Amino acid sequence: MSKQHRSPDQYPYPVFRIGIIGGGQLGRMLVKAARRIGCTCVVLDPTPESPAGQVSGRQILADSHDPDALQQLADQVDVITFDIEDIDVAILSTIAQRGHRILPPTALLAEIQDKLRQKQLLLRLGIPSAEFVAAEQPDVDSFARFGYPLVQKARRGGYDGRGVVVMRSAADFDQALPVPSLIERFIPAAKELAVIVVRGQEGEVRSYDPVEMCFRSGENILDMLLAPARLPAATAAAACRLAIETVTALEGVGIFGVELFLTQDGELLVNEVAPRTHNSGHYTIEACITDQFEQHLRAITGLPLGVTDQLMPAAMINLLGAPGESGPPVIRGLRAALAIPGVSVHLYGKAETRPFRKMGHVTVLDADIERAREKAEQVRSLIEIGGEQD
Amino acid sequence: MSKQHRSPDQYPYPVFRIGIIGGGQLGRMLVKAARRIGCTCVVLDPTPESPAGQVSGRQILADSHDPDALQQLADQVDVITFDIEDIDVAILSTIAQRGHRILPPTALLAEIQDKLRQKQLLLRLGIPSAEFVAAEQPDVDSFARFGYPLVQKARRGGYDGRGVVVMRSAADFDQALPVPSLIERFIPAAKELAVIVVRGQEGEVRSYDPVEMCFRSGENILDMLLAPARLPAATAAAACRLAIETVTALEGVGIFGVELFLTQDGELLVNEVAPRTHNSGHYTIEACITDQFEQHLRAITGLPLGVTDQLMPAAMINLLGAPGESGPPVIRGLRAALAIPGVSVHLYGKAETRPFRKMGHVTVLDADIERAREKAEQVRSLIEIGGEQD
Repeated sequence: MSKQHRSPDQYPYPVFRIGIIGGGQLGRMLVKAARRIGCTCVVLDPTPESPAGQVSGRQILADSHDPDALQQLADQVDVITFDIEDIDVAILSTIAQRGHRILPPTALLAEIQDKLRQKQLLLRLGIPSAEFVAAEQPDVDSFARFGYPLVQKARRGGYDGRGVVVMRSAADFDQALPVPSLIERFIPAAKELAVIVVRGQEGEVRSYDPVEMCFRSGENILDMLLAPARLPAATAAAACRLAIETVTALEGVGIFGVELFLTQDGELLVNEVAPRTHNSGHYTIEACITDQFEQHLRAITGLPLGVTDQLMPAAMINLLGAPGESGPPVIRGLRAALAIPGVSVHLYGKAETRPFRKMGHVTVLDADIERAREKAEQVRSLIEIGGEQD
Repeated sequence: MSKQHRSPDQYPYPVFRIGIIGGGQLGRMLVKAARRIGCTCVVLDPTPESPAGQVSGRQILADSHDPDALQQLADQVDVITFDIEDIDVAILSTIAQRGHRILPPTALLAEIQDKLRQKQLLLRLGIPSAEFVAAEQPDVDSFARFGYPLVQKARRGGYDGRGVVVMRSAADFDQALPVPSLIERFIPAAKELAVIVVRGQEGEVRSYDPVEMCFRSGENILDMLLAPARLPAATAAAACRLAIETVTALEGVGIFGVELFLTQDGELLVNEVAPRTHNSGHYTIEACITDQFEQHLRAITGLPLGVTDQLMPAAMINLLGAPGESGPPVIRGLRAALAIPGVSVHLYGKAETRPFRKMGHVTVLDADIERAREKAEQVRSLIEIGGEQD
């Protein structure tokens, strides 16, 4: 039986045992928060010494499609959560039916991990989002009929800009992804935003302030996050309301990253929802009283939610593996970057770098968000994650 | 050869390998900070699954007086540090002489771990501190000659209020500790303060703002810490200057907790110096940009020091094992405490509780320090760390 239904407010140590499917950096930061509040974690990941497995001390070496391994995980913990979306929900549902608690709920994961079903769900729930149609295979006529510019998104498995192609005109059709996908209206966004929302088991819901996602022009790779987003107060409040409305309509439990477009007309549209802790919420570790990882744990264990107040503006950049380098990582420019006031460096402990692999991130706090941004740019020009092999 | 002397600014992962003598909560929080900046840790502690060992993933099961184990630790790391003071400095010096880096320096630890030698050193260095004399054994006449009220302190092994006896008059002499000690003038302090100071290998030095240490009246157990201390700005600045002067005079490298008396006449005296991360600096995890643990690592690895700015006032209480209870811990009132806005709970993962054992701590952030204090008092009345055995 799950611990959280025992009244009185009394927990033998460990307070909860958390199972995490996926042992990447999100899991790693979740494990650290879990240990802090007296929880232990078991990580399921096929890579020995995964980033999360290193800190949890207990890892099941298997992938997220292995039914026996998932059952073994379930047997060892009070609640299962995940740091990846590419999970076999059929297996997970079976485990949930056997009485194991999985949060966010498996049924919701099934709807969200398929981007077409996610869009259809948002539409049914009345959440504003870009116009779209299903595209089982890329088809030059149906793309033309839908009209350019458009965005093709693979239904499954895309992340970090992979599985998404922006097509300005019919001339770009040769870049189409040969997979089941959807096509949606290209939104000429004034800004892209993300709002981190946490929702508890009894429906209590809170959001952090909107974060501004800056992309390198012409690329679909996130360049920098600014928290809070540089927005009029009314727009920021509307973004929070929309993100909260979305997660409430989805009946999510845990942390959700809600990505939004702010159109050039000032309209807010939901781009995508991630049913997990989110890259755009990493700044909360340094900048907020309760960070997104502890919030997620509080939500999935039924503990009260924490406050989302931000103490100081922050800029965040990802540390990606340098192009053309791989193998055991070599961190260049660390000392120079740490000499900049307000810089916090996070390295994920990955044994191998690859071009553009997420190897870490840096958060810069500064009372002035523009200065935070400038410092983050300085850090980006200083730190490079190279590899020992060329 | 130590990594830090390699120019250029380039580090193969792990950036540094840190050895930690002592696997308690200080070590645990140090390991978490170390992993964040890309360092790995090996912990030396005789207790299996020690708080720090749980998160480092690598622990040598031995005590700090075992020469072979200490050498084994030294062979696996780039730099050794400690989270306890009760270490055999003769063994450590031998290891240092073999070319292993140990920080803070062994010679300094030797002077500080003996409270009599520490007082003598402060005196030689011209650091203001309470008048004292050596007292190899308690002797009623010499105590009377020194004059009451006085404080008897054991030279070795005291911590958390143990090894210290306040004697108001000759009638208290029967409480005297039968060990080599010193006696010092009892200071009727207006406040007790702590200043966390970090000093780097090239002498760069920074302090956090002074923290106010509140003791339960009549007891020598720390009740609550308020950060920043409620002081006139000039007094706070003078406290920082004195603490910095002290650590500079000691030629310390790493984090030092400098405990001070503010006398009723407004004079500042150094009470004691701890050559390690300090209980009074735990609030820096939530309240400051760079916390005391990362600062310590930056200092002992030769990386640049971080900023010490505090983002919001904080109150901190220790979670001590409830009197009369022991065995596997049971945390009561956790849910109620977490429902208070701004509360962060830290549990140390100790397998057994004992009366007054440090099992965790709670930091409360609030824009108003008095409100932070009130919330911390509320938390103290809510959370209790019991044990499964009575």
